[in-house]
Amino acid sequence: MDPKTEEILSPLRASVKEQGDIVRQLKANGAPDLDVKHAVAELKLRKKILEDKELSLAPASVTFDRAKMEDLLKRRFFYDQSFAIYGGITGQFDFGPMGCAFKANLLQAWRQFFVLEEQMLEVDCSILTPETVLKASGHVDRFADLMTKDIKTGECFRLDHLIKAHLEKIASEKNTPPNVKEECHDIIVKLDGMTKEQMAFIMAKFDMKSPLTGNDLSEPMEFNLMFGTQIGPSGLVKGFLRPETAQGIFVNFKRLLEFNQGRLPFAAAQIGNAFRNEISPRSGLIRVREFTMAEIEHFCDPSDKKHPKFNDIRNTELLLYSACNQMDGKPPEKHTIGSAVDNGLVANETLGYFMARIQLFLIRSGVNPTKLRFRQHMSNEMAHYAQDCWDAECLTSYGWIECVGCADRSAYDLSQHTKATGIRLAAEKKLTEPKVVDVVEAMPNKAAIGKAFKKEAILITDALAALNIEGIEAIETKLGMDGDYDLTAKDKTFTLKKGMIEIKRYKKTVHVEEIIPSVIEPSFGVGRVMYAIFEHNFKTRENDEQRTYLSLPAVVAPIKCSVLPLSSNPEFQPFIKQLSVGLTKVDVSHKVDDSSGSIGRRYARTDEIAIPYGITIDFDTLKEPHSATLRERDSMGQVRIALDEIAQIVHDLSYNKLTWQEVENKYPKFEQQENKGN
Amino acid sequence: MDPKTEEILSPLRASVKEQGDIVRQLKANGAPDLDVKHAVAELKLRKKILEDKELSLAPASVTFDRAKMEDLLKRRFFYDQSFAIYGGITGQFDFGPMGCAFKANLLQAWRQFFVLEEQMLEVDCSILTPETVLKASGHVDRFADLMTKDIKTGECFRLDHLIKAHLEKIASEKNTPPNVKEECHDIIVKLDGMTKEQMAFIMAKFDMKSPLTGNDLSEPMEFNLMFGTQIGPSGLVKGFLRPETAQGIFVNFKRLLEFNQGRLPFAAAQIGNAFRNEISPRSGLIRVREFTMAEIEHFCDPSDKKHPKFNDIRNTELLLYSACNQMDGKPPEKHTIGSAVDNGLVANETLGYFMARIQLFLIRSGVNPTKLRFRQHMSNEMAHYAQDCWDAECLTSYGWIECVGCADRSAYDLSQHTKATGIRLAAEKKLTEPKVVDVVEAMPNKAAIGKAFKKEAILITDALAALNIEGIEAIETKLGMDGDYDLTAKDKTFTLKKGMIEIKRYKKTVHVEEIIPSVIEPSFGVGRVMYAIFEHNFKTRENDEQRTYLSLPAVVAPIKCSVLPLSSNPEFQPFIKQLSVGLTKVDVSHKVDDSSGSIGRRYARTDEIAIPYGITIDFDTLKEPHSATLRERDSMGQVRIALDEIAQIVHDLSYNKLTWQEVENKYPKFEQQENKGN
Repeated sequence: MDPKTEEILSPLRASVKEQGDIVRQLKANGAPDLDVKHAVAELKLRKKILEDKELSLAPASVTFDRAKMEDLLKRRFFYDQSFAIYGGITGQFDFGPMGCAFKANLLQAWRQFFVLEEQMLEVDCSILTPETVLKASGHVDRFADLMTKDIKTGECFRLDHLIKAHLEKIASEKNTPPNVKEECHDIIVKLDGMTKEQMAFIMAKFDMKSPLTGNDLSEPMEFNLMFGTQIGPSGLVKGFLRPETAQGIFVNFKRLLEFNQGRLPFAAAQIGNAFRNEISPRSGLIRVREFTMAEIEHFCDPSDKKHPKFNDIRNTELLLYSACNQMDGKPPEKHTIGSAVDNGLVANETLGYFMARIQLFLIRSGVNPTKLRFRQHMSNEMAHYAQDCWDAECLTSYGWIECVGCADRSAYDLSQHTKATGIRLAAEKKLTEPKVVDVVEAMPNKAAIGKAFKKEAILITDALAALNIEGIEAIETKLGMDGDYDLTAKDKTFTLKKGMIEIKRYKKTVHVEEIIPSVIEPSFGVGRVMYAIFEHNFKTRENDEQRTYLSLPAVVAPIKCSVLPLSSNPEFQPFIKQLSVGLTKVDVSHKVDDSSGSIGRRYARTDEIAIPYGITIDFDTLKEPHSATLRERDSMGQVRIALDEIAQIVHDLSYNKLTWQEVENKYPKFEQQENKGN
Repeated sequence: MDPKTEEILSPLRASVKEQGDIVRQLKANGAPDLDVKHAVAELKLRKKILEDKELSLAPASVTFDRAKMEDLLKRRFFYDQSFAIYGGITGQFDFGPMGCAFKANLLQAWRQFFVLEEQMLEVDCSILTPETVLKASGHVDRFADLMTKDIKTGECFRLDHLIKAHLEKIASEKNTPPNVKEECHDIIVKLDGMTKEQMAFIMAKFDMKSPLTGNDLSEPMEFNLMFGTQIGPSGLVKGFLRPETAQGIFVNFKRLLEFNQGRLPFAAAQIGNAFRNEISPRSGLIRVREFTMAEIEHFCDPSDKKHPKFNDIRNTELLLYSACNQMDGKPPEKHTIGSAVDNGLVANETLGYFMARIQLFLIRSGVNPTKLRFRQHMSNEMAHYAQDCWDAECLTSYGWIECVGCADRSAYDLSQHTKATGIRLAAEKKLTEPKVVDVVEAMPNKAAIGKAFKKEAILITDALAALNIEGIEAIETKLGMDGDYDLTAKDKTFTLKKGMIEIKRYKKTVHVEEIIPSVIEPSFGVGRVMYAIFEHNFKTRENDEQRTYLSLPAVVAPIKCSVLPLSSNPEFQPFIKQLSVGLTKVDVSHKVDDSSGSIGRRYARTDEIAIPYGITIDFDTLKEPHSATLRERDSMGQVRIALDEIAQIVHDLSYNKLTWQEVENKYPKFEQQENKGN
């Protein structure tokens, strides 16, 4: 780290640490929740100031021009706003041929890298999800943002954004008295931990109106971010578009466990769309209403989170931004994942294994390794059930953005669905040695119960069978004292008398115990990963600012190869056809560009859509033995290769079975200046 | 055709033809619409009777047991009902590991076969679609079924199903008088063409109640089959889940045309989910609420629907069930697609080209060629805008089901979106020779208009620019007669005076003309294709009824290869590992089954999940040179192959680069009886 930079950052780091220590102290003293929240909000603000300063001081090796990149992506139809001819909808994007092929290749690589290589169980579950499922998962109650409405136009605003913008404006005005400025600053800092009522109070106090119209605003209201709909025509089954793909895996746990012949650990995976009705989406592909996720749920024994392949990746170095360093104002640090797990920084081997694999996948797919870090959730950020959580973050012009989450969710999800359905989502674990346990059973006297309760007897026997030891002993005590017991089953109460049940006690040797598996969840936001890759690969040719290109790795590039006849000479035609057939045969996607325009100009066009290899048919091609030139996009190096070899070579280059270096070493270099287009 | 069968069918065929001729006659005479509809309903009924009889007489080469197949698919988790632990939702299914892999392979093959081989422009568009888009496409107004509700429980029924079931019951009762029976029969026949009011009248007349509860039923109501939701929090943007993927392509037409450098023809493709809120889904995967489609929209010059590759497939034989044969009660006929297009049976080369390609794809993916036909829509079935439409139908235990539609939709969709948005979704066509045309323009006198209308002048100049010749001449006439003209622009009226505009007439040479492309649309229902493939490949081993298996072609099989150690001998372990690594390296999905159980029993388990190849590690594997046996699922033939060759061979077999016959010819046969499992 540059010492000058460190000098500037040093007081900011100290300021973070000071606040980090306060938070620690408050927690250690068991301070009230709200106090902790406020202190954490201030901590986050200081962290943000530090991070912004760090980013502003980072050596800008290349100046990145987002508008220029977005122009390219739009012009060559990687993606663009959906329904634009109808005015467009914010937060929704359509992927054009180039974006769609990139996405399909990325997902195919993901499937290869994770599902096939790790033999995961891939599933494809419903998007429409009944309310009961999302009630159990917590989404119906908690997946919401606060908002307020313009009472005349109905325009909606995210409440925290609105208050922040309003107060920042007041604080920046010249004639605002110092004490008010300070109050504004104080509120902004504390906004993150505020309740609905507190925000309503602030709105009223500062007399906030719609920033667009000046109209009055409604009371704050919670807005659930899920898209609601009705399943079936009756209006009786309320449903939502799933806000994540994970729940589809959890509700299928039993089938998947059975598919895996009852054995743990195993991982299930799913690629699919999820939906969030953002109040005001922005930041292009990063915050959208409809998006593709690729999620893995690895189920394992909570007492054994070792991973059999951990040694394969033990020495992988990761840039880890621990919760501790975040609180201390320290920068992220490089660690091997082996040492990070050994010294407890990363909670367990399985979590660590996935982090290393995530990094490898992202880098292979085009993420710049110097713009990738893993940030640990601080304990206050983490869902209450999570054991540990690390986000793979990519540095973009929007700052560090979360692209992949990797969390140990413990037994939370399976427990919730078990509670809601009464169906035990659990696995059996073989005991190392058999165990003798005390069993207590409430045996129904079927004759007596049948006589007393007729058809409802079955409800009682079922309820008795479901009782745990405490329940049985409560009945025993009450029957002993009063001679009767009121049993509740399916919302009905039945009065049991002595003699209707018998309490049996015996010892049993068991060989297995029931466990609720822990879940380790790597969760990829596919659009965000794509966006980071776009930014990390948008480049400009040296000496020619106008000539921009995308250096996507061949394996994910939308099209692997271009075929360019030097001119419209009809003698070139049969060779184009021959190459096209040859490339199709070895499954290499390609694009013939026989339009007019200099060869340099056409190379530039193919560079824009990230085509890594270009075959040019020139006058030497016509001579026997037939040959053509092959050009590599990033180096612009060219070689000459026999025509009947070329398709296989492009195939091998495209799927990492051959490097460009190897090709350059083997084949004669072709030297011809690439003309600038005209 | 068996003459005995024909004898039985002959009167049914005659009955269809008789009614077909009546329909033709009515149409020729320009009979009222309702009369035609009734005659067509009767025609359909007779066709159905004929088809049912044909199916019942068909030689049942293998008795197919649907329950047995469904048990296998459920047990080995190909697919199952969604959210089953919450009671399940009808019409929604989750694909488990085997179904998901089969689906992913099928879609990958589709992408290879259509998108890559034909260089189509694949897109990936939003699912959530604003109402305006689906209003223009006609879905908001017309995509509905009639239903009625139990007024107490809210249970819904599809009205035509309800009436039909009710009247069939009455007609079947012994003491129903003959005239009432006849009336019932008559209504059932005519049901298809009935209005809401007519159905309401019938419900009242027969005093229909809920078949489940006996409660009263509501008035009939139209139920739109799209799932509605709100986009954004304001409740102001109404949206739907798309009922087909096609509209996403149409609204992107301009971008796609530009991507193709303005040239026709080109095809766009999309794979994605679509949703229909069926009133009462049934028939398993065939009628569901959430489904994957793979659609192609081929845009071409309406006056030139030739296809450059038509000659490649000209001699492909298809079983064509023409509209004409359907009306004449005749069976489908085999034709080459070349002759079918030549004699006008299939409307054009492009439509024919896709039909042949669809057939080839379906057969390669596992559809039984003897259970595949193309049925032409009769003119009354076709959407009013369609030029010709053929459905690829597969014969299943549910009868012939439509799996792929292939329609010439003319310029309908692009015209509708042009109308709704004012943005011309058209292409330019180069004229064979330049044309001189008369141009009439209304030139605004900007000074005069600016003075008179100030800021609103822009509205007027825009409106003038958008006028066609008739509009301009109307202004000219009115100005000449009265000296003023009331122009309407954006809901406002402006009175133009003489001198504010000048009418210019001149001649212009044009080299291009604007055309609205025609669309040829092959549309795959992926779930239905999968279902047909399941049925066509569900087989039973000779001499062992209990041993069922799925003979899916290797290219779509969920897993390509099993690795089975003969026993749990630890000496086998390193070979398992070596094979697994080797198979992963050449991208062959595989499953190691080292569970106990005889080798025969394990083969049977892998056969059930359609694994085409099995490698067994036995005691000879331990000897040098190391080798293993390779078994093919359908023939159960086995050969012995050197260990280091085997992965590549399985790869080549799995991707159609090698046949099993070739392998059997080259390698020594391995003879060992497959023990029945125990």
